Amino acid sequence: MRDYQQLRGLVAAAFTPMDEAGNVNLPVIDSYAEYLTKTGITGVFICGTTGESASLTTGERKDIAIAWVNAVKEKMKVIVHVGSNSYPQAMELARHANEIGADGISAIAPSFFKPEKVSDLIGFFEPIAKSAEELPFYYYNMPSMTGVNLSVPLFLAEGKKRIPNLAGVKYTHNNLMEMAECLRLEDGRFEVLHGYDEILITGLALGAVAGIGSTYNYISEIYLGIIDAFEKGDMDTARKLQMKSIEIVKIFNKYGGGVRGGKAIMNLLNIKCGPCRLPFAPFSKEEYEQLKADLEKVGFFNVKK
Amino acid sequence: MRDYQQLRGLVAAAFTPMDEAGNVNLPVIDSYAEYLTKTGITGVFICGTTGESASLTTGERKDIAIAWVNAVKEKMKVIVHVGSNSYPQAMELARHANEIGADGISAIAPSFFKPEKVSDLIGFFEPIAKSAEELPFYYYNMPSMTGVNLSVPLFLAEGKKRIPNLAGVKYTHNNLMEMAECLRLEDGRFEVLHGYDEILITGLALGAVAGIGSTYNYISEIYLGIIDAFEKGDMDTARKLQMKSIEIVKIFNKYGGGVRGGKAIMNLLNIKCGPCRLPFAPFSKEEYEQLKADLEKVGFFNVKK
Amino acid sequence: MRDYQQLRGLVAAAFTPMDEAGNVNLPVIDSYAEYLTKTGITGVFICGTTGESASLTTGERKDIAIAWVNAVKEKMKVIVHVGSNSYPQAMELARHANEIGADGISAIAPSFFKPEKVSDLIGFFEPIAKSAEELPFYYYNMPSMTGVNLSVPLFLAEGKKRIPNLAGVKYTHNNLMEMAECLRLEDGRFEVLHGYDEILITGLALGAVAGIGSTYNYISEIYLGIIDAFEKGDMDTARKLQMKSIEIVKIFNKYGGGVRGGKAIMNLLNIKCGPCRLPFAPFSKEEYEQLKADLEKVGFFNVKK
Amino acid sequence: MRDYQQLRGLVAAAFTPMDEAGNVNLPVIDSYAEYLTKTGITGVFICGTTGESASLTTGERKDIAIAWVNAVKEKMKVIVHVGSNSYPQAMELARHANEIGADGISAIAPSFFKPEKVSDLIGFFEPIAKSAEELPFYYYNMPSMTGVNLSVPLFLAEGKKRIPNLAGVKYTHNNLMEMAECLRLEDGRFEVLHGYDEILITGLALGAVAGIGSTYNYISEIYLGIIDAFEKGDMDTARKLQMKSIEIVKIFNKYGGGVRGGKAIMNLLNIKCGPCRLPFAPFSKEEYEQLKADLEKVGFFNVKK
Repeated sequence: MRDYQQLRGLVAAAFTPMDEAGNVNLPVIDSYAEYLTKTGITGVFICGTTGESASLTTGERKDIAIAWVNAVKEKMKVIVHVGSNSYPQAMELARHANEIGADGISAIAPSFFKPEKVSDLIGFFEPIAKSAEELPFYYYNMPSMTGVNLSVPLFLAEGKKRIPNLAGVKYTHNNLMEMAECLRLEDGRFEVLHGYDEILITGLALGAVAGIGSTYNYISEIYLGIIDAFEKGDMDTARKLQMKSIEIVKIFNKYGGGVRGGKAIMNLLNIKCGPCRLPFAPFSKEEYEQLKADLEKVGFFNVKK
Repeated sequence: MRDYQQLRGLVAAAFTPMDEAGNVNLPVIDSYAEYLTKTGITGVFICGTTGESASLTTGERKDIAIAWVNAVKEKMKVIVHVGSNSYPQAMELARHANEIGADGISAIAPSFFKPEKVSDLIGFFEPIAKSAEELPFYYYNMPSMTGVNLSVPLFLAEGKKRIPNLAGVKYTHNNLMEMAECLRLEDGRFEVLHGYDEILITGLALGAVAGIGSTYNYISEIYLGIIDAFEKGDMDTARKLQMKSIEIVKIFNKYGGGVRGGKAIMNLLNIKCGPCRLPFAPFSKEEYEQLKADLEKVGFFNVKK
Repeated sequence: MRDYQQLRGLVAAAFTPMDEAGNVNLPVIDSYAEYLTKTGITGVFICGTTGESASLTTGERKDIAIAWVNAVKEKMKVIVHVGSNSYPQAMELARHANEIGADGISAIAPSFFKPEKVSDLIGFFEPIAKSAEELPFYYYNMPSMTGVNLSVPLFLAEGKKRIPNLAGVKYTHNNLMEMAECLRLEDGRFEVLHGYDEILITGLALGAVAGIGSTYNYISEIYLGIIDAFEKGDMDTARKLQMKSIEIVKIFNKYGGGVRGGKAIMNLLNIKCGPCRLPFAPFSKEEYEQLKADLEKVGFFNVKK
Repeated sequence: MRDYQQLRGLVAAAFTPMDEAGNVNLPVIDSYAEYLTKTGITGVFICGTTGESASLTTGERKDIAIAWVNAVKEKMKVIVHVGSNSYPQAMELARHANEIGADGISAIAPSFFKPEKVSDLIGFFEPIAKSAEELPFYYYNMPSMTGVNLSVPLFLAEGKKRIPNLAGVKYTHNNLMEMAECLRLEDGRFEVLHGYDEILITGLALGAVAGIGSTYNYISEIYLGIIDAFEKGDMDTARKLQMKSIEIVKIFNKYGGGVRGGKAIMNLLNIKCGPCRLPFAPFSKEEYEQLKADLEKVGFFNVKK
């Protein structure tokens, strides 16, 4: 089996640092990147869902991409999410990602006008992927956010014919039968990037070798432990570690999910990602205190030392 | 009961003319506008769902707004939809709408990060509405597209406190009990713009006096007839006319809905709106022929003469 | 236009009286029926959603049907809902309804194994309707409860060919365009029984002449007022009355909806319908007090005098 | 860790044999059971979704339970599904299961009136489980069929207090994070029976030691192979075998799913399960031929030799 895998291990879906007024806070990216280089992750996925791309302007997204490429060049992979409901905007972002030296691009399905057929989804991505044709293109499949739940194996098999740089899929969905199919498709021809951190162990069981997620930003040690234990066949340790990640996920779900809650966790770790942009409500002082207490209860800050 | 109603009668949700390459075709707007001025409609709602705003860039949306204001100024109202998942973009569009002399602005709920509470929805719209504070602001409620289905009466009652220019709601939803509540709220304080053309008669029954819809572009005569019959108490005529509109809606639903099918109908009427932008698939020659035959079968072109 | 309408005016979806232990309380039906005969309603729809048929045994359903037929025979129509996920059970109930002299039968779609095609839905109802072939059969369309949302006009048009006694549909759904189609289908060949009391006015606008609902049990005077005002062309009065019904609906929605909240209202009116059967939670004393206060606030008990 | 596990390995969700007229075909159960005893499965789960319980009468369900207990007594476990929208019916079935010597009972959530709170779900099951209090009670969680998607860990933890014989859950849902939580809850206090055969490998990764599913009826050898390979740490073999099961699942999905398609497969294997009951459409001769061809293409009949 030839190895097509360009991404391996843990890729952090990066948050977009903002200041209290909701403006993008570019200078933070340097220290954020430096922190990440010490965590064992192998890449960053920027301006995705976690990066609040939907809430950003095209100009902001370019600035952020430049800052990340400059900060981590040669140290880890940078995948730039260029998805947009407006394909000309996505094309512009794809061209830009290529120009600045990103390692790959990705795009989520348009979610306002939802493609109802796989061929329409391919048709939408075709000019976008072509705008950075030397870079690998990853389809970002996340039906819970987009409402677009089309067959991914069909997308990959048919898409490859019209999108030569189609490399694989960031699979953020709970249909693990389908994920298994993607992994075995054409003898492993496509990269299938595991998307739900809290069940990484199931992705490993199915054969995934890389994952993209937001909690890799702050508990990568847990996931590295899962991968290590899994490879050694020590399933019990892997399961126990997975439960630790689940405990964290359950906590941030009480605070509005992995973007809003995740940014607050980063702030508690002194990586100043700041607040989320509207429509996320600001994080109150009371919430920070409660979150801190919740995290202490499950030993989060001990893990971090 | 004081009259707060600024919009009355039929407001056309305008299509955005494009050329075969998918570029915005601004020059068509003049002839399109001239055509509309002869149809009895009282306003246009531009860059909304029908106008494919989600697929457009911010620059394109500004150009389109200018073209419409210039084309119909003094002849009919121009409501500019400024909604966006990115509120800074929406603010920019709101300021621009105000500068160029639009008569009102509207915004749909953000649909990628979906507000889960009414207060978050208000918080999102607050800076946007403030960016054009002299203009009436209409919340564009369309859960079938956004997945945001929050209480509209609560939004109006609470929103008014933080958004002084909140004038009402474009109500494009099938919860007619809720629409009735909006109409009676605070003794009719808010404009409730009927959103589903195919059941205009039910909106009239509930007390609506204005509607915004895409089929008002090409069968306004039917709806003017419904309003006229309804006011005369001739319900049977009103119902028969409503059935004619339903027949048209059923036809375009076979062709991908009111945007894709509606643009094709406009093209058949020689208002050159062109194709939709991706992710809508191009309209084939065979589809045009079939659509024409379908429309002929229900006497569409006779109505138009 | 020939008149096929067998049902006219308001048909009450009857509650099933139960005692505190959750057993069916048959003796109450006599006094309940006597009360209803004074309210201006023209029929009862028994063992439907409001009657908690899903929670009853087949034997209980037969007993209830007998009690109602005996109680109101000659005074008003009795439509027996015979729907069940198990079609042999539904057939047994249909035969029984016929034997005891019911005026019609109705069945909801099976909701565990959901038919995915109209032809499967027809196939399911065929033997059931045939089991009471002299009685009119009404399809009970309620997608919000069943998850079965198939085209009703298609069901009626195709179903008529295989179900000779198919008389129409109890249309409890918010797709009013489709309801309009049903009403005009084959020149008014089918009875279309309006299903959502809180928007009766919209059903009247579309041409419905009968409705089946649970609130007709206790505020029929409001609805008779709506119908009267509508017929006189006094839309404003009709709307004001409709708002009164909406206020009541909003109240019971706070208490678990029209079945659980509705039974509690009946109890407050001294028609001893008792509690709901599990899975509905028992109604607490505190809830009764709060409900009473809520109803007093909107003048409910004044209307009842 | 004390071992609470009563079920281990593969439990077949049994089909209910029927004749061409749709009547239950009890005599087939003997030969069906004999066949199953040779397949390596450890139990049967009868009158569940696969057994079409929703389409059966209470009497039929009792007859089927008796036939299975008689046929496999001492040879494998018999879990009787007693779930019903009507809890008195479920109680009757639970008592009966106990009387005839079943090894456990299970019940699915009521799906017409859907409990909205965990406490209501517990309240519904309480009298049912008590009707067979010496037997282990398993909650059958299957939101895709019931629309009831309540927290299962909360149900188990709280339910245990009111349902002493609550043994665990048949977990047929794609929320594997939640399934992981159930497995680790109270140090493994609850049995968590894996429910989706096509991803058994992920359940094993999470720590499940038993599964209940319909495909164990006819390709148990594949799953026994998966379990064996998994235990040896030979993940690649386990994945390849899982893909074989996925191929079969994809095939029957073309024929209406695991009940309708699964029964047809049994018929092809000469276990005469016959057709499904309505609302499932009958299986045509053409479909059988196509199904056979589809199965041959993936080598199904070779596996069976």
